[in-house]
Amino acid sequence: MHNRIQRIVLASRPRGPISLDNFRLESVPQPRSDALQDGEVLVKNRYLSLDPYMRGRMSTAKSYAVSQALEETMLGETAGTVLASRYPGLQPGDAVTGHLGWTEMGICPGERLRKVDAQRLPLTAYLGVAGMPGVAAWYGLNRILNPVSGQTLVVSAASGAVGSVVGQLAKQCGCRVVGLAGGPRKAAYVVEQLGFDSCLDYQQYSDDKALNAALAAATPEGIDLVFENVGGRILDASLANLNAHASIALCGMIAGYSGQPQLLQYVGKLLTMRVKLQGFIITEHPEIWPEALAQLSELVASGKLVYTETIADGLAAAPQALVGLLAGHNLGKQLVKLGSDD
Amino acid sequence: MHNRIQRIVLASRPRGPISLDNFRLESVPQPRSDALQDGEVLVKNRYLSLDPYMRGRMSTAKSYAVSQALEETMLGETAGTVLASRYPGLQPGDAVTGHLGWTEMGICPGERLRKVDAQRLPLTAYLGVAGMPGVAAWYGLNRILNPVSGQTLVVSAASGAVGSVVGQLAKQCGCRVVGLAGGPRKAAYVVEQLGFDSCLDYQQYSDDKALNAALAAATPEGIDLVFENVGGRILDASLANLNAHASIALCGMIAGYSGQPQLLQYVGKLLTMRVKLQGFIITEHPEIWPEALAQLSELVASGKLVYTETIADGLAAAPQALVGLLAGHNLGKQLVKLGSDD
Repeated sequence: MHNRIQRIVLASRPRGPISLDNFRLESVPQPRSDALQDGEVLVKNRYLSLDPYMRGRMSTAKSYAVSQALEETMLGETAGTVLASRYPGLQPGDAVTGHLGWTEMGICPGERLRKVDAQRLPLTAYLGVAGMPGVAAWYGLNRILNPVSGQTLVVSAASGAVGSVVGQLAKQCGCRVVGLAGGPRKAAYVVEQLGFDSCLDYQQYSDDKALNAALAAATPEGIDLVFENVGGRILDASLANLNAHASIALCGMIAGYSGQPQLLQYVGKLLTMRVKLQGFIITEHPEIWPEALAQLSELVASGKLVYTETIADGLAAAPQALVGLLAGHNLGKQLVKLGSDD
Repeated sequence: MHNRIQRIVLASRPRGPISLDNFRLESVPQPRSDALQDGEVLVKNRYLSLDPYMRGRMSTAKSYAVSQALEETMLGETAGTVLASRYPGLQPGDAVTGHLGWTEMGICPGERLRKVDAQRLPLTAYLGVAGMPGVAAWYGLNRILNPVSGQTLVVSAASGAVGSVVGQLAKQCGCRVVGLAGGPRKAAYVVEQLGFDSCLDYQQYSDDKALNAALAAATPEGIDLVFENVGGRILDASLANLNAHASIALCGMIAGYSGQPQLLQYVGKLLTMRVKLQGFIITEHPEIWPEALAQLSELVASGKLVYTETIADGLAAAPQALVGLLAGHNLGKQLVKLGSDD
């Protein structure tokens, strides 16, 4: 008599865009609390975090992250509840975030879990605005771009988990903030709910020149700072409108995640405008996480940093939700809710 | 009775590659020493410096430099001899470099001239290895790339005025240095005369994948540092082979100077390898020129830094020489020699 749980494994590697048959839902024996080693914790996952970087891990291409192994549980951040613990710092009932992956339940070393206060903020916030995406926004803005009041900042994927934080923080620094987002719903959300100065719906501009001109009109003093999450023609529009000595924090290039070459008309601006560009991966900067998380949590708790979420229901919905995320269907942070709320 | 001199003006702006009819040779009255204002100097030009950045100035596109005006003397660095001076620091017979442009003779403020020691180094060296190109190499290497012994550096346009200095300085830092150059003569020069570890003749590889693979073979430990002068598929080959936390000093993008879009297959590496890229224009960093010039002159004088020159004969040859420079026909620094040696 073994109880069983569900998990999702990587069944095959995508060629080009991912599809549902790259994944397989399967049942495996439930991890047992009596199997815990010293220092380990059994966690019931309540939410999966879906993030664009997952696409990179599904390929074997040399990248910043270890490649996701075939037939293994899909990697990813999770938020859940401690069921059993042999780690001194955690006890049953504690709310934690970790990297348990796409499974209903898992065991991991307690030192790799972050205990969070689910009374102060909703549990899901610790996967988004007060989690990795928020810290990525904070780092790129404060450690690479160093915004100064009066500068113009452009952020792509402006309604997403990272972009939405970038823009709000930059507004608090006194910047003029212009977003780029896909679709009228997102663009309206960015201006009306997040308070950006403006937001272009790039889907309205099938012609690159029209997109570049629209961004020029939205940034009458040119662009000083770019927080890039997309790449491709979206990045090119920013490049076209850069001011001298502009800075670019390169956080994501979702446009190229399926391996497409990127035709950049304005890559020469990196030279002619004497641009500083820095690519970064937020997990490589653990030293700034405590400060960033403390600031972000305080801003959320005091209502000065708002966010939204798109939540898919049930583990089986995760593959479709990831396909949707990579296609830009989500508004704000994309999550998957597992099981019941008990 | 007025003596006349020759000059070359910009007759029309190029669309795409430049051509000879963008220029016009004309004669104008000779500047007279009795027209000098206080602080001004009359200079007879002996050499013109031709540099890739000139292509950018011939267009009206927003760039780092002021656009070259139509019907005005072509702008550019020059080396020559003072004929008359109302500037305290200079007297007739002094050797100077300046920005007199494509003319046999000119008047300019003495404070904009650099007095050079034509006994210590040949006059032409002050337009190349001990001039702007050398300082650009020095700055990009020492202020952006900060090479460490054992790192692998790739420099494009390796036989050119800038690239040849970059590679020699990097070798002195203990780097493994790989050049990229166009044609077997240049590639051989780079290895045999400049002492690079290897040099790829990219013209041998019409296929991009073959070029990338050849560069991979020449950089078995990957690429840590890139000094980029070319852009396009040459830059892409370096991007394809970058190590994590690589740095790129972006000094030139001659591949895009005629306005071509650049199809970069590997721009995503800027993110996945967490790259720092910095575009720069050496004239914006006047504070480092004295230190750089002192070091470069000493290295040349002591034989530790070698260089070569391609010298066109006579002012009328300048347009064709610039066309050739942009097409990569020169070896080393491209100059134009004016008049006789008297």
